[in-house]
Amino acid sequence: MILTVTLNTALDLTYRVPDLRPHASHRVTEVTERPGGKGLNVARVLAALGHETTVTGFAGGTTGHLVREGLAAVPGVVDALVPTEGASRRTIAVVDRRTGDTTQLNEPGPAITPAEWDDFQSAYERLLGAADAVALCGSLPPGLPVGAYAGLVRTARAAGVPVLLDTSGEPLRRGVAARPDLIKPNAEELAELTGSHEPLRATQSARRRGAHAVVASLGADGLLAVTPKGRWRAAPPAPLAGNPTGAGDSAVAGLLSGLVERLPWPDRLARAVALSAATVLAPAAGEFDRAAYEDLLASGVTVTSEVG
Amino acid sequence: MILTVTLNTALDLTYRVPDLRPHASHRVTEVTERPGGKGLNVARVLAALGHETTVTGFAGGTTGHLVREGLAAVPGVVDALVPTEGASRRTIAVVDRRTGDTTQLNEPGPAITPAEWDDFQSAYERLLGAADAVALCGSLPPGLPVGAYAGLVRTARAAGVPVLLDTSGEPLRRGVAARPDLIKPNAEELAELTGSHEPLRATQSARRRGAHAVVASLGADGLLAVTPKGRWRAAPPAPLAGNPTGAGDSAVAGLLSGLVERLPWPDRLARAVALSAATVLAPAAGEFDRAAYEDLLASGVTVTSEVG
Repeated sequence: MILTVTLNTALDLTYRVPDLRPHASHRVTEVTERPGGKGLNVARVLAALGHETTVTGFAGGTTGHLVREGLAAVPGVVDALVPTEGASRRTIAVVDRRTGDTTQLNEPGPAITPAEWDDFQSAYERLLGAADAVALCGSLPPGLPVGAYAGLVRTARAAGVPVLLDTSGEPLRRGVAARPDLIKPNAEELAELTGSHEPLRATQSARRRGAHAVVASLGADGLLAVTPKGRWRAAPPAPLAGNPTGAGDSAVAGLLSGLVERLPWPDRLARAVALSAATVLAPAAGEFDRAAYEDLLASGVTVTSEVG
Repeated sequence: MILTVTLNTALDLTYRVPDLRPHASHRVTEVTERPGGKGLNVARVLAALGHETTVTGFAGGTTGHLVREGLAAVPGVVDALVPTEGASRRTIAVVDRRTGDTTQLNEPGPAITPAEWDDFQSAYERLLGAADAVALCGSLPPGLPVGAYAGLVRTARAAGVPVLLDTSGEPLRRGVAARPDLIKPNAEELAELTGSHEPLRATQSARRRGAHAVVASLGADGLLAVTPKGRWRAAPPAPLAGNPTGAGDSAVAGLLSGLVERLPWPDRLARAVALSAATVLAPAAGEFDRAAYEDLLASGVTVTSEVG
């Protein structure tokens, strides 16, 4: 089983409006609602790839109820979320029908109590017993210590479970120092972590800070992987037009499934790039287009080894 | 008892963001949640004025549950909402902390089935039996006939209950033809109804179309009332700085309570202007500042009779 952790689950709402103008009133023409938070997105993709997947983290209130209800409808994903007194957050993606651009509004999330954090840590330790790998994903809700992910990385390592960390800011900095097996920062997160805007230098610096392997997602430039086994760049055949929402989460699912299947690094990277690109190409935000994924995997992704 | 009807109740969310920029991602720093829809806002103000008030309309889903939960916490308001299969809508007011400006996003609302509409009409007829006046407020949810308000106006008139209609567009046009006792359009709604942008001409034209009395709300210019008893203008002492959300609903509550108390027109208008101004001045959107209301009522509102 692959375990994904989403401490700040969300009810993801997408609003389509004809033309978003600040300070005006808008009639939303279309509303879609689905369970979200990075770890839930990763789990959905893992399940679609045929992996048994369990999600944990927190959910509470009527929004949490809707998250769990939506999750129950996803085949292959087991819900092991821990209840909270506070309500799970909403995120709202406002899509301008005229330009296709998205404006994002993210609620902060519920304040987690110390007792709830203890409950979660017990559940997490128990779940690790059955896990082949674990992904720790997304922002921390209010109330949790900034070193929360660092603690969870150490617990996974003590249990002998490979751990991927995908977060940002100070929780990432602390988490990296706890020596996760893999991190997948984007260019901005990597620059914030290392102080360098030069991707290769920054990726190498992130490894020195503690990450065993680093796969940096560089947008249209694809992935840059620096690992104990070597260094690679992986990219789609051409720049992609579409909605990048969830593309990073699909890349995480590709890397994690490849790790569990003990694929060589170039195959893991090809899968991550193909899934990520197939997510950008899918009509619905956060879904991936399976036919595009298979096409890209068969012939569309370039993986190049680099000598350091 | 005063009855207010909100066919499209809402869970009103207010998001504060540091600086709203289209196509960017925003961390919401503060979230507030309360039951909304114009008729619910009117009911809250009526109850605060000491009137027994009953709200009806539709509520459903987890959002409807939150609306009813919030309503249960308002003293003096009785919940007679009719359940729907579809979920009540959300509205989101995004307040830019830098400029204080508000960007509004309104979901359309649930599709009402014919059986639900029948249930509502039965409940409405029954409630009218105990009502001294009724206010029909706000937009129609999907699935209802555009003449829905016209039918409800006729039912109220047949029951001998004075009826105020506060809506816009085609539902207002049809509703006015059914001869409501009072309508309270703003300048834009009045122009859409009558084709005239000249307030006095438009107000008179709205009466000819069927409204027994018309009170037009003209923003900073206050209210213009054209009634069978005469014509008045009522205005606050000076332009007001603050949040206009709910000011129109407070004016409706002032007019309706004045009608039930059989106040002379100038007193009803003074109350409506004072409540409306005290709503703009209140720190929380849609609340009214009671001290400001009492001050304005005592000496701050000018009511001028006009000869037509």
